[in-house]
Amino acid sequence: MVNETQHPCSTSSSSRSDAGSSSGSESSKDSSRCSTPVLDADRHERLREKMRRRQDSGDKWFSLEFFPPRTANAAVNLISRFDRMGAGGPLFIDVTWHPAGDPGSDKETSSMIIANTAVNYCGLETILHMTCCNQTKDDITAHLQKAKRLGLKNIMALRGDPVGEEWEEEVDGFNYAVDLVKHIRNEFEDYFDICVAGYPTGHPEAESYEADLRHLKEKVFAGADFIITQLFFRSENFLKFMKDCQGIGITCPIIPGIFPIQGYHSLRQLVKLSKLEVPQEIKDVIEPIKDNDAAIRNYGVELAVSMCRELLDSGMVHGLHFYTLNREVATTEVLKRLGIWKEDPRRPLPWAVSAHPKRRVEDVRPIFWASRPKSYIYRTQEWDDFPNGRWGNSSSPAFGELKDYYLFYLKSKSPREELLKMWGEELTGEESVFEVFTCYITGEPNKNGYKVTCMPWNDDPLATETNLLKEQLEKVNRRGILTINSQPNINGKPSTDPIVGWGPSGGYVFQKAYLEFFTSSEIVTALLKVLKKYESRVNYHIVNVKGQNITNAPDLQPNAVTWGIFPGREIIQPTVVDPVSFLSWKDEAFALWIEQWAKLYEEESPSRMIIQYIHDNYYLVNLVDNDFPLENCLWQVVDDTFELLN
Amino acid sequence: MVNETQHPCSTSSSSRSDAGSSSGSESSKDSSRCSTPVLDADRHERLREKMRRRQDSGDKWFSLEFFPPRTANAAVNLISRFDRMGAGGPLFIDVTWHPAGDPGSDKETSSMIIANTAVNYCGLETILHMTCCNQTKDDITAHLQKAKRLGLKNIMALRGDPVGEEWEEEVDGFNYAVDLVKHIRNEFEDYFDICVAGYPTGHPEAESYEADLRHLKEKVFAGADFIITQLFFRSENFLKFMKDCQGIGITCPIIPGIFPIQGYHSLRQLVKLSKLEVPQEIKDVIEPIKDNDAAIRNYGVELAVSMCRELLDSGMVHGLHFYTLNREVATTEVLKRLGIWKEDPRRPLPWAVSAHPKRRVEDVRPIFWASRPKSYIYRTQEWDDFPNGRWGNSSSPAFGELKDYYLFYLKSKSPREELLKMWGEELTGEESVFEVFTCYITGEPNKNGYKVTCMPWNDDPLATETNLLKEQLEKVNRRGILTINSQPNINGKPSTDPIVGWGPSGGYVFQKAYLEFFTSSEIVTALLKVLKKYESRVNYHIVNVKGQNITNAPDLQPNAVTWGIFPGREIIQPTVVDPVSFLSWKDEAFALWIEQWAKLYEEESPSRMIIQYIHDNYYLVNLVDNDFPLENCLWQVVDDTFELLN
Repeated sequence: MVNETQHPCSTSSSSRSDAGSSSGSESSKDSSRCSTPVLDADRHERLREKMRRRQDSGDKWFSLEFFPPRTANAAVNLISRFDRMGAGGPLFIDVTWHPAGDPGSDKETSSMIIANTAVNYCGLETILHMTCCNQTKDDITAHLQKAKRLGLKNIMALRGDPVGEEWEEEVDGFNYAVDLVKHIRNEFEDYFDICVAGYPTGHPEAESYEADLRHLKEKVFAGADFIITQLFFRSENFLKFMKDCQGIGITCPIIPGIFPIQGYHSLRQLVKLSKLEVPQEIKDVIEPIKDNDAAIRNYGVELAVSMCRELLDSGMVHGLHFYTLNREVATTEVLKRLGIWKEDPRRPLPWAVSAHPKRRVEDVRPIFWASRPKSYIYRTQEWDDFPNGRWGNSSSPAFGELKDYYLFYLKSKSPREELLKMWGEELTGEESVFEVFTCYITGEPNKNGYKVTCMPWNDDPLATETNLLKEQLEKVNRRGILTINSQPNINGKPSTDPIVGWGPSGGYVFQKAYLEFFTSSEIVTALLKVLKKYESRVNYHIVNVKGQNITNAPDLQPNAVTWGIFPGREIIQPTVVDPVSFLSWKDEAFALWIEQWAKLYEEESPSRMIIQYIHDNYYLVNLVDNDFPLENCLWQVVDDTFELLN
Repeated sequence: MVNETQHPCSTSSSSRSDAGSSSGSESSKDSSRCSTPVLDADRHERLREKMRRRQDSGDKWFSLEFFPPRTANAAVNLISRFDRMGAGGPLFIDVTWHPAGDPGSDKETSSMIIANTAVNYCGLETILHMTCCNQTKDDITAHLQKAKRLGLKNIMALRGDPVGEEWEEEVDGFNYAVDLVKHIRNEFEDYFDICVAGYPTGHPEAESYEADLRHLKEKVFAGADFIITQLFFRSENFLKFMKDCQGIGITCPIIPGIFPIQGYHSLRQLVKLSKLEVPQEIKDVIEPIKDNDAAIRNYGVELAVSMCRELLDSGMVHGLHFYTLNREVATTEVLKRLGIWKEDPRRPLPWAVSAHPKRRVEDVRPIFWASRPKSYIYRTQEWDDFPNGRWGNSSSPAFGELKDYYLFYLKSKSPREELLKMWGEELTGEESVFEVFTCYITGEPNKNGYKVTCMPWNDDPLATETNLLKEQLEKVNRRGILTINSQPNINGKPSTDPIVGWGPSGGYVFQKAYLEFFTSSEIVTALLKVLKKYESRVNYHIVNVKGQNITNAPDLQPNAVTWGIFPGREIIQPTVVDPVSFLSWKDEAFALWIEQWAKLYEEESPSRMIIQYIHDNYYLVNLVDNDFPLENCLWQVVDDTFELLN
C-alpha cells in the first residue's frame, strides 16, 4: 500500500451495489464445542478476533508486507522467505496488488497466487490487497470470489492509482476505496475481514488532513475492521493521527506502518511514490553515506527501533506493520531488538497448520510427507474434509495426482547445476548414491568438496530432531539403507521441549521411533528374516515401485506415532503411519528418484541408468518400534540385518 | 432347548413363506477401515464369524444357557450372575423361550427383556430362543422385529411343544423349526445368525435316528448357521452324531450341549422333559447319594469334566455349550477345571463394551458413570450415534431422563432392610453419613457390626484399582470429603497389568489421577482458595444441586483421563471428564441421595432430613491432576484444604 493514492475531494461515493445476493457464510461458525480439540484458540479465530485478543492480553505483535515477485524463481525464493519469516510469529502478512502485474491471474507471480501460497502452503494468516480503480464490478467480484475459493479471508481494500493523468470519477463505478469496502460487504457479507489504509500525515492528494480523516471514517463505517497506516518518519505523527481518529469516533484498531530504511535508492523511490517528505534530520544523516548500503541499513534499523519503542511505550500501539520490501535482514533485526520476534515459536502441532479456513480443523497427517508438507497440502487440496483426530474417518480419500514437480511452491530452491554438484556430476554405481545420502546426513562435503544440503525427499537440511539420530543414520546409509525420514522415540517430554515439543505448555509429548528408507531386495530379504524376531514389537510396510506390498500391520489401521497429552484436553495424535496413504506416498517417493534426480542426467547416460535401476529395483521400507518407553530397537533390527548378510 | 420336541414324521415341511420383503440389512457392513480403532476384532464380528475364527485359531470356547426367571427379584439376581459369569469369557449366552411365560413381552421376566439386558447392559453376545408352534406368522414376525429393534442378532429357531395332546399340522402354519428358519431368512435376510437344535441320540419322537438327521440337514440348508445339541451322557454319542452329520453333508459348527448334573431332582425333571434315558452306570452312582446335594454336584462336575475332556481331545470339538439351569457353581467349576474359564479376562476397554450392534463402535465414555455403567447405557439408549474417539463430535447429546431407579436391571441387589443395616437405621448428623462412606472404603464393619458393601453410587464393593488409594480415601471421607469415584494416575503400565490393564497385549496404559466427591460449602470455599495454587495443574468442576457451576476447564473441552497406546493402532482414549455430560451426571448423582438413601426413612424423620440437607447444600466436585507422570497431587490439594480450614 506504499503507493496508494486517494481522491482528494469526495464524501459522496457510489454506494449502489445491487448485484445478486451474498455468498459468504460458510465461514467460521465453529461452535465452541468443536470436533477437534482446540489446542490453540488462534486456529479458530478470524484475524480481527486475534487482533482484539492480542490487544486485550497486552501481547504485542507484528505483521509483514510483501509485494509479488517478478519471476518464477523469485517466487520460489519469496516462499522460502515466508517460511523463514513466518517462524518469527507474525500475526499476518499481506501481499500487495499491482493492476499492471495481472494480480488476479493464476501465474505464479500474481498477488492472488502468492497470497494463496502463503495461506495454504505456508500456513500464514494473509491479507490480500485489492484495488478497485478502473475496474468493472464484475472483475472485482470475480477476484473476490476467487480469493474466497482459495481460502483467503482478509482483504485490504484500496482505490489504487488511476490510469492516465486525466482520471475522472465514473458514475456507479468504483472511484474510492470506500466503494470497494461497501461492495465487499454487500456481496460477501461478513466473510472477509477488511482492512483500509490510513495516512498519518494526510493523504498527499487530500483536500486537507481533516477531510482525509473524514474519508477514513467513511471507510470504517462502511465496514472496515481495522486500519493500517502509510509509513511515517516520526512517532508523534502517528500518535497525533491516532488521537484525531479516536476524536472523530474511529474505534477500530489502527496499526502503524513501519518502514525500516534499507538503502538510499529504495528510500528515494518510496518517497517519490508516496509523495512523502523525508525529514531534514534523516536526510542529513543519509546523504553523506548514500553509497554505503550497510551503513544506511544500520542507521535505518536504529531509527526504526527507536520509533517503534516510542510507539509501543505510548501504550496506544499493540501491533506494528512492517514494509519489508521483500527483504529479510533489516526487519528481522528490528523485530529481534524489540523483543517481539519469536525465537522459539510454540508449534501448535508438530507440523505447520495450514491457514485455510477449511483446513484449520486438520489435526492428523501421515508421517510420510513430514519433509514435503507442501506436497501433502497440494495432493489433498481437493478433500472436503480432513481427518479429525481419526484418520480412519476419511476412508482413504484419493490423493491428488503426481504432477506437482513443476509447481513453483514445490520446486527445489537449488538450480540444476547446484544439484549436480551435490548429488554428483557422474555416478559410478549404487555406492556413489549411498555416498550422497551419507553426506546429507553428516553435513560433511562430498568428494568434490560440496555439501549436500538437500535431497529429492527433503528440501531442507536435516531437522534438529533428526540430528539426535545422526550417528546411527550415517552408519546405515553408508551400507545402503538410504534413509529419507526418521524420528526418535520420546517417552513423555514436556511439551515445551525446544526440540521435540509442540502444543500448549503443561503437556507431555510422545513418539514411537520411526525409520523410513529405500534399500535393495537383498537387504529386504535379510530384513524380513530379522523382523520375524521383532514381530510383536515392530510394525513394517515394505513396498516396491510396482506396488508389491509386505506388511504385518493389522488390517488397514493407522499407527499413531506422535501424540501429546495436555491439561484439560483430549489426546492429540497429529502424526500417523497410515497404510492406505503410504501407497500414495510410495508413488511420490519413487517418482522423485526419476523426476528430481535421474532427469539431471542425459538419457541413456550411466548416471541416469543407475538411478533408474534403484527406482526399478529397490524397496521403500518403513519401520515403527511400538515399545516407545524402551530403547529404540530399530537400530538393532538394522544391525541384525547386516550381520545376517555377512 | 432342553424341552424342545420335534414332530416324528415329516420331510415335507411348509416352505411357503411369501410375506412382504425383507428388512434386515442395516447390519454389520462395517468396512475393514472403520471409524474407531479396532482393538478387538471380536467387537465387529457376528457370532458365526467369531465361532469360525476361534475354530481356525484353535482357541477353545464355551457358552452358557439360562432360562428366564419367574420373579423380578430373581431377574435382578440373574443379571448379576450374567455379570459374574460373563467375566469368565463365554463366547455367547442364550436365553430360553417358554410360550406360557409371555416370552416376547416387556415384563422384566420375559425372555425378550432378559436377552435385551444381557446384550445391552451386560455386553454379552446373546442368542434368543424362539419357538414357532401354535403361533401366527404375524406374532412371530413381531417378535423378530422387536428382537432386532433391541439389538439382538442371534435366534435359536425351535419348534416348541405343541399345546394339547391332539396337535395336528397346520396348513401354511409353522409346524417345524425349519419353517421358522425359512421365515427368518425370508423376512430378515441375513440380519440374524440362526442356530438350530440337534439330537445326538435322535429326537425322542423321531421316526428314526436317520430321519432325524435328515430333518437337521433341512434346517441347516434352510439357512441355519450352526447347531447346538441336546444334552447327552456319553461323549461317543456326540462324536458319532457329528460324524453322521458330516456324512450327510452338514458342514456348519455343531456344538455339544453339556449338562453338569447338579442334583437328583433337577436330573429327574430334565430326563422327564427331554425323554432321555440316564445310563445305568450314572444311576448306580446317584441313587445311593440322592439326598446329598453336594455329593451329587461333585459327581456331576467330575462326569462333565471327563466328558468334556474326551470331546476336546477328539479334535472335533472347539466349543462347549453348558446348560447352567441358572446356577453358577457347577458350571464354573467344570470350566475352571477344563482351563477355559478366563481367570483374567482381557478387557478390550476399561469399561464393559455393550454387545448392541449399534453400540459396538462406542469407544469413549464419561468417567462419571464408571460405577453405574448400566445407568449410562440406559440414559444414552436413544442416541443414534456414539462418540467415536472424539467425545466432542456428539455435541452434548441429550441424556435420557432420570426415571431409572425402578428398572430391574438398575435396582440395588440389596433389599431395604439390608441397606438400612449398612447405611444406618437412624442417622444422627452429617458425621454418621461420613462414617458410612468411611466404612464402605475400609471394608470394616460399621458400629452395628455390618459391612457396607454398596453405596447409592456404587452397587459393588470397592474396585481393586480403587484399593490402591484406600488409605488416603479413608482419611478424607472421615473428614467429610465423601468420595464416590476415583482413579490413581498411571504412567505407562503394560496393557496386560492385572489391575489397571486393558486392551490388546503389547500396549501401555495411562491415567490421570481423578477424584470425585460430595462435600460441604465450607470445604468448597477453602478448596477453591487452595486450587488457585494448582491452577495450571488441576482441572476442577464444582457444582451444586441447583446447577451453580465453578470450573477452570477451557471451553467445553473434554479431558481424557484414561488412554492406551497399542502396537499398530491409533491412540485409544476410552474415558473422559466431559463438562457437558457432567451436568447430566450431577442430576443423577444428587438424585441418588434422595431416591436410594433418604427414601429408606420415614418422611419428616431426622435421618431423612439429614440426607435431604446434604442433597440441598453439598457440592459435587471432581478434580483431575493433569501431571500424570508426577506423584498424584490431589491428596495434597485435599490436605492443604483441611489445613486451611483448621
